[in-house]
Amino acid sequence: MTQVEVKKTQESLQDRLAQVIELLHRQRVVEDLTHRQEGPHHDRVENLVHRQNLVELQRKLDDLHSADVAYILEALPLEERLTVWQLVKADRDGDILLEVSDSVRETLIADMDDHELLAAAKEMDADELADLAPELPRDVVHELMEALDGQQRERVRSALSYDEEQVGALMDFEMVTIREDVSLEVVLRYLRRLKELPGHTDKLFVVDYDGVLKGVLPIKRLLVNDPEKQVAEVMASDPVSFHPDEDAYDAAQAFERYDLISAPVVDKNGKLIGRLTIDEMVDLIREESESEVLNMAGLREEEDIFASVWKSLRNRWAWLAINLITAFVASRVIGLFEGSIEKLVALAALMPIVAGIGGNSGNQTITMIVRAMALDQVSTGNTSRLMRKELAVSLINGVIWGGVIGVVAYLLYGSWSLGVVMTAAMTLNLLLAALMGVLIPMTLARMGRDPAMGASVMITAVTDSGGFFIFLGLATIFLL
Amino acid sequence: MTQVEVKKTQESLQDRLAQVIELLHRQRVVEDLTHRQEGPHHDRVENLVHRQNLVELQRKLDDLHSADVAYILEALPLEERLTVWQLVKADRDGDILLEVSDSVRETLIADMDDHELLAAAKEMDADELADLAPELPRDVVHELMEALDGQQRERVRSALSYDEEQVGALMDFEMVTIREDVSLEVVLRYLRRLKELPGHTDKLFVVDYDGVLKGVLPIKRLLVNDPEKQVAEVMASDPVSFHPDEDAYDAAQAFERYDLISAPVVDKNGKLIGRLTIDEMVDLIREESESEVLNMAGLREEEDIFASVWKSLRNRWAWLAINLITAFVASRVIGLFEGSIEKLVALAALMPIVAGIGGNSGNQTITMIVRAMALDQVSTGNTSRLMRKELAVSLINGVIWGGVIGVVAYLLYGSWSLGVVMTAAMTLNLLLAALMGVLIPMTLARMGRDPAMGASVMITAVTDSGGFFIFLGLATIFLL
Repeated sequence: MTQVEVKKTQESLQDRLAQVIELLHRQRVVEDLTHRQEGPHHDRVENLVHRQNLVELQRKLDDLHSADVAYILEALPLEERLTVWQLVKADRDGDILLEVSDSVRETLIADMDDHELLAAAKEMDADELADLAPELPRDVVHELMEALDGQQRERVRSALSYDEEQVGALMDFEMVTIREDVSLEVVLRYLRRLKELPGHTDKLFVVDYDGVLKGVLPIKRLLVNDPEKQVAEVMASDPVSFHPDEDAYDAAQAFERYDLISAPVVDKNGKLIGRLTIDEMVDLIREESESEVLNMAGLREEEDIFASVWKSLRNRWAWLAINLITAFVASRVIGLFEGSIEKLVALAALMPIVAGIGGNSGNQTITMIVRAMALDQVSTGNTSRLMRKELAVSLINGVIWGGVIGVVAYLLYGSWSLGVVMTAAMTLNLLLAALMGVLIPMTLARMGRDPAMGASVMITAVTDSGGFFIFLGLATIFLL
Repeated sequence: MTQVEVKKTQESLQDRLAQVIELLHRQRVVEDLTHRQEGPHHDRVENLVHRQNLVELQRKLDDLHSADVAYILEALPLEERLTVWQLVKADRDGDILLEVSDSVRETLIADMDDHELLAAAKEMDADELADLAPELPRDVVHELMEALDGQQRERVRSALSYDEEQVGALMDFEMVTIREDVSLEVVLRYLRRLKELPGHTDKLFVVDYDGVLKGVLPIKRLLVNDPEKQVAEVMASDPVSFHPDEDAYDAAQAFERYDLISAPVVDKNGKLIGRLTIDEMVDLIREESESEVLNMAGLREEEDIFASVWKSLRNRWAWLAINLITAFVASRVIGLFEGSIEKLVALAALMPIVAGIGGNSGNQTITMIVRAMALDQVSTGNTSRLMRKELAVSLINGVIWGGVIGVVAYLLYGSWSLGVVMTAAMTLNLLLAALMGVLIPMTLARMGRDPAMGASVMITAVTDSGGFFIFLGLATIFLL
């Protein structure tokens, strides 16, 4: 993929989206007119306006960087998205497909015939092909593989063999390799013969005759050192490197921590097999944070905001169904105390306060813990300390805010004992919230699941049922 | 800041943290022993073990990259954090201070005297100093500024004059500038004379005699082109550039979109005044996602997981207090219907289901919308479409899941009409959740606030009070 030079566009990207939407709307109005008014004269006017609009839209799109077109496609509803997609020049199909999100890519691929897909894919590198392959029709993939040379085919196969969360699935193969026993002068001449360097080349990879990585030569060092020097004198001989089966997110954290731009990927014999670049890592960091947010809210995956209603339903049902069960459990907890509520109906009005504050506080705790776990800051050595801190915070919140609510309950219903029960129930439920806010994500992690998974739904379930039980139980014992 | 070469450490970072914690614990056990057992013999043994431990710890820390030390400091409780901090070699203080999060940095600075702070800060570049300055004691800042030359002082002042969310606060000043009327050969020779290039130098900045940016020369092009060529022939003359008062997050998105590594910052006359680099942008992308997660849960800011209980309380109180008020309102809504509940106590058990499912569904919607807004995918052109989709999803969920719960209510309480009221209330509350899930973040954004701010607390407030009102209201009208 060649890097297109781009103008300064960031401040006006929202404007451009607005312009495209404006043009699309105008287009639709014109189309609506045609359907209503028939006759040769109207037709001709319509055609003219129609074509002018399309030409203007086409020109706007041609001016845009592929990444910007991808952004606009993401922000358009399906029908308009496909109108734009058909206008995008065929030779940029591939670049744009690689830029859009998975869910949007699916809608675009569904709109292309095999011939178009083949044309788009033929421009791609092995790692890009591997990214795309799972979403392409099988016979298209077959035909593509046939067209590749042996090394490329091997690379696509290898990239496909890794899980998408492994380094092997994210690496590319655009390494510039050199030998350690040549002078920098020779390296400079070699580079000049290449005519073009791959994007994100901040270092060259030094390998021996067996392809084993001996070190890296940062371009910075190549530029400032005496050209007479040997590569071996100047190279960094113990660079950060990765294995293809490592967790990609760990690699992204290493990129962030050590400010890397590219890094070698080596197999277990130390042989150089690919490289990672910062752009893939940035995407990963963003995706990881996104999936954390989504998981906490009980959404299964990134949802294209214009996904069909049906797709949205599927994405949201799993956790809604779980929530339905937990809400039913909470309801049954209340059911246990229907007798108490009949005697003292104020309990019905006060119980959601206990549950609600517990839920909020529990969500705060669980958010903190999930964050800290994502940053690898939680270890067995500090768990109990963390727990004590969260419990202390809850105890203080319970006594203070529970006290406030207790006074309010007294003022409303004129019963001191009701106020005290309220305060006690709040405190206990906040302690429960803190306990579970720490334990739920840790247990999920120990089970090998994502600690953020439905965290919000689960903690709310606990604080609802728990809150109702604690409050109504205490009230039944002490007030009735 | 020089770039330290690092070994491959990412897979063992958790291990290293564990080792450090282990050593610290051993240390503490030894200290505890001394306090209990007195006498000259024990003392000597203790001292020996003590010193061995410290030496081992010191060696471990010296082996680590500054970023790794920062990571370990983040993961330690205050007391142990300061023990480690004192062991870190004085000449790395500065690097490490720049790597840790704001809240941890505060605790470290509090542990340093003015002399140490001055020593640490003297190694820093102008942009790094500006980062640190707001947290340093005023007389230290004063002394530091005195020690700087005119240009440096001007740079620190300028960086401090920008809001931390503006490009001007994140730019550095390590640009390598060249003229357009020289040959690449001259550029290569010039670089060699510099001895060292700043980190993240993937392009050189081409300026005229007034310092106005004429273009950029990507290192890639410098390397592959004929050295006889002029810079003007080879440079990119219309690069992505930024203004110091632009929103830093927009800049980060542009870095991500266009795969940039560095980019020039120019003033309104086109004069080059600094540059942005991908490492700062990656930090920003991560911070932005984090603050989104935290804001949604109603946490004011990043909280060091070992922050004091008092600090945690302050961080969490604002939204807890708001939640207390909203819970009180919900309670009063129920209070309105106490008469109905007295007549039909089943209402008390069923009402939290309506509120709870509404809250969950509303949280899903608001999470989607906040995400889409963060990615700039929501514009006036598509709001109504988004709204219709969310309402359709809610309607279907309401009819189906509301129907299920209606049947359950019938089975539990033997009343068909109760079941129908339940289904209707669920559907209406889900529609309310969808409506508010879209409107709340959009209204916040229009008011110039962060759309994620307390989103979860607010949507839950609406679905609780709304759910109780809808359900109890319908029940009062149709059942009693």
